[in-house]
Amino acid sequence: MKKINVLKPVLVSNKQRAQENRKIFDNMGSLVINIIASPGAGKTSVIEKIARYFKKTLNLLIIEGDIRGQVDSKRLAKLGVDVVQINTLTACHLDAFMTAQVLPQIKKKYDLILVENVGNLVCPAEFEIGEDYKLAILSTPEGDDKPLKYPLLFHLARVVIINKSDLLPFVDFSNETAKNNIRRENSKAKIFEVSAKTGDGFDDLYLFLEKELNEKKKKGKNKG
Amino acid sequence: MKKINVLKPVLVSNKQRAQENRKIFDNMGSLVINIIASPGAGKTSVIEKIARYFKKTLNLLIIEGDIRGQVDSKRLAKLGVDVVQINTLTACHLDAFMTAQVLPQIKKKYDLILVENVGNLVCPAEFEIGEDYKLAILSTPEGDDKPLKYPLLFHLARVVIINKSDLLPFVDFSNETAKNNIRRENSKAKIFEVSAKTGDGFDDLYLFLEKELNEKKKKGKNKG
Repeated sequence: MKKINVLKPVLVSNKQRAQENRKIFDNMGSLVINIIASPGAGKTSVIEKIARYFKKTLNLLIIEGDIRGQVDSKRLAKLGVDVVQINTLTACHLDAFMTAQVLPQIKKKYDLILVENVGNLVCPAEFEIGEDYKLAILSTPEGDDKPLKYPLLFHLARVVIINKSDLLPFVDFSNETAKNNIRRENSKAKIFEVSAKTGDGFDDLYLFLEKELNEKKKKGKNKG
Repeated sequence: MKKINVLKPVLVSNKQRAQENRKIFDNMGSLVINIIASPGAGKTSVIEKIARYFKKTLNLLIIEGDIRGQVDSKRLAKLGVDVVQINTLTACHLDAFMTAQVLPQIKKKYDLILVENVGNLVCPAEFEIGEDYKLAILSTPEGDDKPLKYPLLFHLARVVIINKSDLLPFVDFSNETAKNNIRRENSKAKIFEVSAKTGDGFDDLYLFLEKELNEKKKKGKNKG
């Protein structure tokens, strides 16, 4: 596990740098998913589940974004997958420049790169990093109105995971209302209802990711 | 209820503008609390409880910060207290300039001004708005490690509320670990464990706020 401290870069050409990152990831045939959620929504737990499922059949890299510390990357490294820590110091999000600093460390072709962004529903949505797409996680204790209050992320996310379904009996959260609110921002989002604690709902997510990985592989071959 | 759309102002002198706001609030004798938490941690619910308790004996104003929409300010206005909505549009936090735009609308002396910042543990902590102090809310489903991962807010907050104690049996959260993690960042923070759903723990918070309000009133009188 490596650790990189990154100062906040100039914002003006983030989009351009993201496009360059994307090209590099595409050439490696890596499916890159930018995972964005509130603090405590379950980003790390969802990544753990996905990593456990795929680690024997795929080359997997996790890029772990935190303001400070390595709590999550130490936890994820225990799974035996490659983890790179980015500490953003004061920035509330990853960006394409920080992500670019990881590239020289990438020594093999990863099939899947999961990026855990800083816990935040606002700023991380504004900065592309070179991902194939954004995956948003909304947890049931946060409330089903959040897509209306933090619209950009839900507007941009290709996949939305509703996590902590095990807490549904104890919190004021309606899956239907949440899904309607997500659909208002984004009629095409693929929505999964899961519990990272019990494992419920993950089979559908794995199936979806397997299809995406195959698509990405095909595209890579057609290109080459 | 009024609505103000605010564009992102120049950052350079936010601190100076915050000091000016603070002076104006001090002259009115208003205790101003800047409430910061993740999306869904229970900011609005905690404010509802406080507003219900104090609205008959105090002049109370709620400043409601959201990127977009008026979901929470409509909810709070039902309590019969004064509410001003600030829509930050793209900014992930309130700042002193946005707050200053509320000042011309203040036509009476408010004893207590509760400011609900945008749901976010990072950026709102970086921008003073002219508050007496920051109040952070951490909810049990978020996990007890959050003070370590979002240290600035917990370092700066005079008061930390641990909310959703009713969910303790169903989530992996230790009050002791959380409190130790908060104390690591801030040995002087006043910590309250509450449930905005059941009302547990609020009596201590009310008592604390009553003392603070009396202190503020005394200071105002000594000044005048």
